Amino acid sequence: MKIARYLHEGEIAFGIIDRAESGEGVELVELRGDPIVAGYDTTGRRVPLGAVKLLAPVIPRSKVVCIGKNYADHVEEMRDVTGGEATVEPLLFLKPNTSVIGPDDAIVRPAISNRVEHEGELAMVIGAVAKDVPEEDALKYVFGFTCANDVTARDLQIADGQWTRGKGFDTFCPLGPVIETDPDLSNASIVTRVNGEVRQQGNTSQLIHSLAKIVAYASQAFTLLPGDVILTGTPAGVGLLEAGDTVEVEIEGVGTLRNTVR
Amino acid sequence: MKIARYLHEGEIAFGIIDRAESGEGVELVELRGDPIVAGYDTTGRRVPLGAVKLLAPVIPRSKVVCIGKNYADHVEEMRDVTGGEATVEPLLFLKPNTSVIGPDDAIVRPAISNRVEHEGELAMVIGAVAKDVPEEDALKYVFGFTCANDVTARDLQIADGQWTRGKGFDTFCPLGPVIETDPDLSNASIVTRVNGEVRQQGNTSQLIHSLAKIVAYASQAFTLLPGDVILTGTPAGVGLLEAGDTVEVEIEGVGTLRNTVR
Repeated sequence: MKIARYLHEGEIAFGIIDRAESGEGVELVELRGDPIVAGYDTTGRRVPLGAVKLLAPVIPRSKVVCIGKNYADHVEEMRDVTGGEATVEPLLFLKPNTSVIGPDDAIVRPAISNRVEHEGELAMVIGAVAKDVPEEDALKYVFGFTCANDVTARDLQIADGQWTRGKGFDTFCPLGPVIETDPDLSNASIVTRVNGEVRQQGNTSQLIHSLAKIVAYASQAFTLLPGDVILTGTPAGVGLLEAGDTVEVEIEGVGTLRNTVR
Repeated sequence: MKIARYLHEGEIAFGIIDRAESGEGVELVELRGDPIVAGYDTTGRRVPLGAVKLLAPVIPRSKVVCIGKNYADHVEEMRDVTGGEATVEPLLFLKPNTSVIGPDDAIVRPAISNRVEHEGELAMVIGAVAKDVPEEDALKYVFGFTCANDVTARDLQIADGQWTRGKGFDTFCPLGPVIETDPDLSNASIVTRVNGEVRQQGNTSQLIHSLAKIVAYASQAFTLLPGDVILTGTPAGVGLLEAGDTVEVEIEGVGTLRNTVR
């Protein structure tokens, strides 16, 4: 099932993506609230997808947890940039919720960086309070999955050593277009394109630390709250974003997140 | 003016600290809501301080921004631990809001760390949306000040390189006891005691980056939201916390934040 958050006639709503009753096109089955907390009660209203603006499918009230160095080929390409060893345990960092934007929103390159880069990633949306959960139960705490771009001011990331500022600017966490609650992620491709050209190509089968391991590990450090988001790392091929570019993160079975760059 | 957030007869409220009308002891003048967003309208109710449990004076809905290496003597003592140079610009990192606890709450040492340390700090509470604010206006965006303890699992901070996990555990961000809206911080002492013994002794006059500079700089990276908190760095003397310890952070003109350790 695919869940969208959207703006329609000035109101923010959540809905389930469905085929149109007419058989032509796609509609949203409007929900009574955020399904993460309010479940799947519907209002009876159906809205054509073309009549809404899709928003980030979730705004974390607490945190966006990110995992560094989780694809071997990306660890290798970063060897001379941020240090080149995969870590035995997942490497955690945070992006603030003020960095989140939605599909089609613009990534704004800050004036103080000359090197803003894309990092296409699979994101997990947490559905229930999780603290010290065992790996074998961890995926039960995941509400669904979406596409993310861990946009990074590489020059500031390197200058600071700590990654917070370089990865935390406003607009540096595009999420969307929707949350897929039940994708098959055993072998799903993750492709990032800039202006239609493939820049990053990975597969969830290549994750060094599994999705369940990541949730369990993060929950050992922080209480994860419903609506928290975990970005799972990026494959090789990270590279520059310039003003006017369009960047797409496409995950098989989840969707395509598209953003422009200013 | 000192503002408290507290639990009284099962309800969370905000209030202004005042002398009791009887002349004996201290009372809270109850406010109609969070003064950061709702101003200072009072309900007409007065509650004795002894009848309430003080809570963290603010729970950030977005972020706790922290500044590393902002006292020269602490930079020096960390030389062989996390690298020993003061940075030309403030060094930013984040703690999640799930790490916040209030006065008298227990700091819980996670089982996976053998070296949990205190870092007493002055904290600023943001009062208005701030983005790219100039240094000369920056303090206008600060609602008030409180005491903080940037509790750190030093062993995990060192192992990870990124500081997020070691500083982000639940209970690792004690705040309180109250927010002082107008302290004189030109020359205020910051003392941290463990079991009554002085461990850290600093003064706001020793800050490498000024409070205004920190707000301006952080607002260049992130939009700061009302209720966001900025920790301003710790002076020398950081050290171990063990189960059963009581740790106090006392800031002249602001108050004393006291927590136990489990």
